[in-house]
Amino acid sequence: MSGSGAALVLAGISFIMTVIWGGPLIRILRSLKVGDSIRLEAPKRHSIKVGTPTMGGVMFILPVLLVTILLNAVPLIGLSGVGRSILVPMGAMIAFGVLGGLDDWRKLTKREVGEGMRPRTKFILQLILAGVLAYALQDLLHVPHLYLPGYRAEINLGWLFYPIAVFIIAGSANAVNFTDGLDGLSGLISATAFATFGGIALLQGQVFLGQFCFTLVGALFGFLWFNVHPAQLIMGDTGAMALGATLGVVALMTGHWILYPIICIIPTGEILSVVAQVGFFRLTGGRRLLKMSPMHLHFELSGWSETQIVQRFWLVSLLFAMIGVSLAMI
Amino acid sequence: MSGSGAALVLAGISFIMTVIWGGPLIRILRSLKVGDSIRLEAPKRHSIKVGTPTMGGVMFILPVLLVTILLNAVPLIGLSGVGRSILVPMGAMIAFGVLGGLDDWRKLTKREVGEGMRPRTKFILQLILAGVLAYALQDLLHVPHLYLPGYRAEINLGWLFYPIAVFIIAGSANAVNFTDGLDGLSGLISATAFATFGGIALLQGQVFLGQFCFTLVGALFGFLWFNVHPAQLIMGDTGAMALGATLGVVALMTGHWILYPIICIIPTGEILSVVAQVGFFRLTGGRRLLKMSPMHLHFELSGWSETQIVQRFWLVSLLFAMIGVSLAMI
Repeated sequence: MSGSGAALVLAGISFIMTVIWGGPLIRILRSLKVGDSIRLEAPKRHSIKVGTPTMGGVMFILPVLLVTILLNAVPLIGLSGVGRSILVPMGAMIAFGVLGGLDDWRKLTKREVGEGMRPRTKFILQLILAGVLAYALQDLLHVPHLYLPGYRAEINLGWLFYPIAVFIIAGSANAVNFTDGLDGLSGLISATAFATFGGIALLQGQVFLGQFCFTLVGALFGFLWFNVHPAQLIMGDTGAMALGATLGVVALMTGHWILYPIICIIPTGEILSVVAQVGFFRLTGGRRLLKMSPMHLHFELSGWSETQIVQRFWLVSLLFAMIGVSLAMI
Repeated sequence: MSGSGAALVLAGISFIMTVIWGGPLIRILRSLKVGDSIRLEAPKRHSIKVGTPTMGGVMFILPVLLVTILLNAVPLIGLSGVGRSILVPMGAMIAFGVLGGLDDWRKLTKREVGEGMRPRTKFILQLILAGVLAYALQDLLHVPHLYLPGYRAEINLGWLFYPIAVFIIAGSANAVNFTDGLDGLSGLISATAFATFGGIALLQGQVFLGQFCFTLVGALFGFLWFNVHPAQLIMGDTGAMALGATLGVVALMTGHWILYPIICIIPTGEILSVVAQVGFFRLTGGRRLLKMSPMHLHFELSGWSETQIVQRFWLVSLLFAMIGVSLAMI
């Protein structure tokens, strides 16, 4: 109980921190590069006009890192097993945040060369980073490989754990990235998913992991303060990739990653909708399954308002999160 | 743990029930009285045109009653103390729902005579109903009078319990009613408050009360499916008065009603903003404290979007709910 009480307190602290520094950060982001218009010196670069600052991911990444480092400072020095485990999700957040940030930066500065990094480069970098994280999870932390609902014992997957972990981390990074397209959507959905996996971690007695998750939930709520419609900034790939990869790592650390498609039903649905749309298009030689993909655009074209999509996706998430927690507790 | 697991399952069931019957209900409400226009036979009644069906409170009241009655059928027959206790919040929901419904109905049918019931009549009826509920809480259920944070023992208030209980029940009914003014606001805020007091009840071992709260949370989420901006129906006084009175009763049953102003910070703020506005206006002979009251209108006039107000009020609620739970657990 004291572990979960502390988790709530941490969520409150990171929420307040984020709301307080959010205003100045938005002004800094605006003045740095995303004001009314920016003219760059380099040839063939046009003045670009972007209404809403991007790279808002730093708004929640930095407070989470700060709170977590301060909180774990003592265990980190002693390199106790529990405290050190938090370095892996923190590493995921930093590494994928930087990768997403590079992409955001290229989109801002090299508009006509291409929209950000080349997809292949981005994908290979994701796989490399996910591979390093999979190694850390398996060989440094020795996380449980797999729990199945209703089956108490841990299932050992042997070397299969590596490709599965890479698939989940990289897949989750892209799934949350596809979810990021409407004001407040990816923040609200991610916060719900982190609260759910954080709750599972606390029930398992993984206090540090649970507290890390709730620190992130609080910071995401602070971010949402500014990100709700009409958004004053967006998280960008900086935020979405960091959240997605960290979510995958957290799911793996609980051993309940098999519940990811349930607890993260919206990101899973979003990425599957893209895959299905592209696959169907190619198979049928040009026909479309949905009006547009990712699926939130399909609902938008079907006449749902932006707020309706965000709130209804969130309600569905809550329902499936409850199912997920129930399955984890069986 | 099994008690809270069941609470989550109940929330899921009532959510799905509400979403399923919500569509037909909206069509029924439209055809009954709130279609494009209704012409009544009585003299001096004009055709009225109301865009959005009201009295949406029945959308969540009926599923909650159905689920709770079915679930408690056996304990009710045996009149066991635990099961019977749920009759009091159910009674509050029905009584104040009917009172609010009468008011909604008068607003729809007697537009030029006055806007609904006369305030004084309404207020006296509220006090009478709250008095009956206070009697039931004290003399039938023997609920704990008062717990203070950090002080384990129950504080006995003697006869003072009656006026306090009446004040909280009637005050809460009006507080939630003032909160009901933007799409999704009162539903989201109430659901958060019921989840918080429901969590406290579960921590206290009041399983039936906790399950009742989470059944209501699920039904409110189902209602929100249709009520988010742009709302397809609104809860009306039917819903707001029922929710508010029930919330007051639930807070009293936990013994932690002293935390009501924290856990229900938004309804408390809304009603205080009205009191302060009216008081300031009279004291200063016509000056205004806020641009408009209740306070959500002040923020709307200050330039916040409807979604920003609803979501930010909700984020503040979450923060204070966490503080409230922490204080209850000390």
